[in-house]
Amino acid sequence: MYSETGDHSIHVCFSPLSWPIFRQDDALVIITDIFRATSAICAAFQNKVEAIIPVETIAESEEYKRKGYICAGERDGKTIACADFGNSPFNFMNPELRDKTIVMNTTNGTRAIKTAVEGNNTVVIGAFTNLDSVVGFAMNQQRNVIIFCAGWKDRFCTEDSLFAGAVVSRLIEEGNGKFHTMCDSAIASADLWSIAKNDLRGYIEKVAHRHRLKKLGLDDVIPYCLEMNTTSCLPIYKDDRLVAYDYLSL
Amino acid sequence: MYSETGDHSIHVCFSPLSWPIFRQDDALVIITDIFRATSAICAAFQNKVEAIIPVETIAESEEYKRKGYICAGERDGKTIACADFGNSPFNFMNPELRDKTIVMNTTNGTRAIKTAVEGNNTVVIGAFTNLDSVVGFAMNQQRNVIIFCAGWKDRFCTEDSLFAGAVVSRLIEEGNGKFHTMCDSAIASADLWSIAKNDLRGYIEKVAHRHRLKKLGLDDVIPYCLEMNTTSCLPIYKDDRLVAYDYLSL
Repeated sequence: MYSETGDHSIHVCFSPLSWPIFRQDDALVIITDIFRATSAICAAFQNKVEAIIPVETIAESEEYKRKGYICAGERDGKTIACADFGNSPFNFMNPELRDKTIVMNTTNGTRAIKTAVEGNNTVVIGAFTNLDSVVGFAMNQQRNVIIFCAGWKDRFCTEDSLFAGAVVSRLIEEGNGKFHTMCDSAIASADLWSIAKNDLRGYIEKVAHRHRLKKLGLDDVIPYCLEMNTTSCLPIYKDDRLVAYDYLSL
Repeated sequence: MYSETGDHSIHVCFSPLSWPIFRQDDALVIITDIFRATSAICAAFQNKVEAIIPVETIAESEEYKRKGYICAGERDGKTIACADFGNSPFNFMNPELRDKTIVMNTTNGTRAIKTAVEGNNTVVIGAFTNLDSVVGFAMNQQRNVIIFCAGWKDRFCTEDSLFAGAVVSRLIEEGNGKFHTMCDSAIASADLWSIAKNDLRGYIEKVAHRHRLKKLGLDDVIPYCLEMNTTSCLPIYKDDRLVAYDYLSL
């Protein structure tokens, strides 16, 4: 399975802390933050928002708010003062958001996006809800792939690594020898995925983030975030924002 | 299995890069660098050396050499100029080393040891070759446990994480509820261990470090390093050096 010979490498970066080790200049970077930023972003594009502008600081959100933008944002699970709503995927399903541009501020996800946008990288958003689209896009790129787990406060995070493992497994198994990986964290992710995939919800029950969300009363989104392929959208970073990848025009 | 209620926590730190997140002041820290530093240190104490002084820089090794110490040391698998021999466990089995103090300089292992020695931590050396001793010691401590993987150039490293998983599994399964863990990386390590444990050598075949060692011609030690419980010694850090833990006097 772990071919050493394909033209394009696959790496998994377990947390933003490790990005300086894994960074490349001309790679496809798939950002994932399953609970909940990237699942929410996919929900937003499924709901046909125009764009999402990811920001890192409260000051940036406040500045955009003053300019009249719709703002979403949380810190440690609590909606920030200047935001219209928090980062639950359910908040992004409101039909009134269609064709709107939303400014989004998250604890871990935004930072990962901002970090990966460097060199000539292509940065896309991955979640279980758009897994097929992410894999299909990666298959059609002539680039190395890095799956960048947003993690939790710079830590390794199970649900993000499981998503990474799902992508690694698919690219190796379905890539017709196009991809290789000798990356320990990619192989470990694929192996964890092989344990978890038949009962993802059961597996997630035992991990820490599940319990953190529960404590904060934010665990209502877990079944939604673990559902596979509920959308075909592929959010991609262009200029300063995320837009829906248009298979025809790009 | 993953009790939330035991008095003492278990964490796994995947690389020195993550130590600032996991560090505690009064923990038992188990350092592991399976290929090859901690396996070599255990081999040395099995051979009844007096002490091992871990150093980080070439300059330190040269200084000790001038003072007449026996020096072992490598950089990227090559013996450093001032050293008497490299870091293969086999080099530490020489009967002439009995009762001697050896200065040891390694790429990843020494750094992890030096990093963990802070606060009121107890720092011990773990390898598959002394697994039972490490587990037994941890069971008898009234402390939180951190398994600190030396990794490979700050990366997650499969063989070190597998060792961590073996320790986590044992402490949870045999600890009579003394330990709890809600640490994602501890749980992932235990799950990877559950996949690998019945064919550790086969599993290690597929991971990157195996291939790095092979390329450097250093892979002759792999079977030795993956053998369980070939020694009952437990190297422990005391003052500026590692010594054999004496079950009677301490």
